[in-house]
Amino acid sequence: MEILSSHTCFGGQQLFCRHESAEIGLPMRYALFVPPEAKGLLVFLAGLTCSEETFTIKAGAQRVAAELGLALLMPDTSPRGANLPGEAESWDFGVGAGFYLDATQQPWARHWRMESYLTEELLPEVLAELGLPAERVGIFGHSMGGHGALTLALRHPQLFRSVSAFAPIAAPSQCAWGKKAFGGYLGADTNTWAEHDASELMKRQTRPPFPAGILIDQGMSDKFLLEMQLLPEVFEAACKSVDQPVTMRWHKGYDHGYYFIASFMEDHLRHHAAQLLR
Amino acid sequence: MEILSSHTCFGGQQLFCRHESAEIGLPMRYALFVPPEAKGLLVFLAGLTCSEETFTIKAGAQRVAAELGLALLMPDTSPRGANLPGEAESWDFGVGAGFYLDATQQPWARHWRMESYLTEELLPEVLAELGLPAERVGIFGHSMGGHGALTLALRHPQLFRSVSAFAPIAAPSQCAWGKKAFGGYLGADTNTWAEHDASELMKRQTRPPFPAGILIDQGMSDKFLLEMQLLPEVFEAACKSVDQPVTMRWHKGYDHGYYFIASFMEDHLRHHAAQLLR
Repeated sequence: MEILSSHTCFGGQQLFCRHESAEIGLPMRYALFVPPEAKGLLVFLAGLTCSEETFTIKAGAQRVAAELGLALLMPDTSPRGANLPGEAESWDFGVGAGFYLDATQQPWARHWRMESYLTEELLPEVLAELGLPAERVGIFGHSMGGHGALTLALRHPQLFRSVSAFAPIAAPSQCAWGKKAFGGYLGADTNTWAEHDASELMKRQTRPPFPAGILIDQGMSDKFLLEMQLLPEVFEAACKSVDQPVTMRWHKGYDHGYYFIASFMEDHLRHHAAQLLR
Repeated sequence: MEILSSHTCFGGQQLFCRHESAEIGLPMRYALFVPPEAKGLLVFLAGLTCSEETFTIKAGAQRVAAELGLALLMPDTSPRGANLPGEAESWDFGVGAGFYLDATQQPWARHWRMESYLTEELLPEVLAELGLPAERVGIFGHSMGGHGALTLALRHPQLFRSVSAFAPIAAPSQCAWGKKAFGGYLGADTNTWAEHDASELMKRQTRPPFPAGILIDQGMSDKFLLEMQLLPEVFEAACKSVDQPVTMRWHKGYDHGYYFIASFMEDHLRHHAAQLLR
């Protein structure tokens, strides 16, 4: 891990880092906030077009994270620098749009391995670096990163003990963004899509995987909600079908951006701290 | 005033606006945060290379401003689009570097009129728009904007009833940035420079202009402090010479950026609210 820059912030350190990723086969960047006294780690997954900087700069999370003792890990949203044909032609596919899964289709399968990168490489490396116990890790995210948080939590419940999301892509098999990404990364067989669709994964649970509850915030003036890209009601119904407690909060007037996220950041951090740091 | 975008944020509205400025002779942009119940207005002046977006995105000020009832006005840092020769050649002069004064030298004198623009055009327009009393206006800023806040407060005490700064250029006549800017905008006669130098202005006061006190925060790992561009100790000495109360806080480990500003934002907002909203 190479520290590119370090900034004192609310008594902790905001780091921007780079490392060589074996899973991705390329250098990857991430941001890490280390509070004055780290007790747990919270992973934030960002949305389409974002990078490790977006949440770090815009969300205003460091204040309460410092108070609670939560380290914050902000990965990038895709590999960069692979130079695959067409990788930067779309803002919702390729660079900046990794969808937090391992691609099986060519030419993406070699580098687009965000799930393995995050769960088997970056997370263990950061936990070891900070000397934190593996059972105090939560995950949250926004939009495509909300999809990532919900699916990675459901696919790896042994790694993530708390989960929440802002305006997640909650049923990607049923929306345009998800169909494009899953078709491109996973191929035409929609049976494989269900393995990465939070609503489908939740429906298959035999008991509530997060009995202390999942928190989801959604702005009611979010244009992507209105365009049916997010479908949080599908995920909420899936939770109800397996008795998974979910707090689904609808916020009048709020849109899809970071002014919305910042407004409810403190609630999410306290949601995770209550479950991780008991 | 044309609203370019509006975002609900902490129960208020974060607006990005554009208007035609008669003083500048060009369209100007600004950002305005309107809290749920506006009781006073706080102007934030940003530093070199910044725009109306910088503080708005990075400082995390909306949370406490919403709580206190402080509207926040974030102007741009210079005219843009004048297309003067050399206006974008330097990051510390011309575009993004207006220094919050009215230039007297050619070719800058026509458009580079940030002081008149702010005090005679933008501020009255925004106060009228929000229906706020003129006696509840404070000003603060960062770096070049800290210089702007201190000098505009001292030059227009009838307009600004409270003042604070983060890492201000506090004695511009004595530092490289200030010499370049004042020489270019005001000419070689250093007598005119003193009219826009916070330390010189303070030394001339016959009584403390802000008896309730001025708040200044400074990071001790700020590279521009170490390069002698800021000189807050010169301003502190000027305050002492006229019995102006000043709280000069030195913060170990903090640098010049917005992670520093965000860390102490709440203290500044409460400093102003205590003086403006009594």
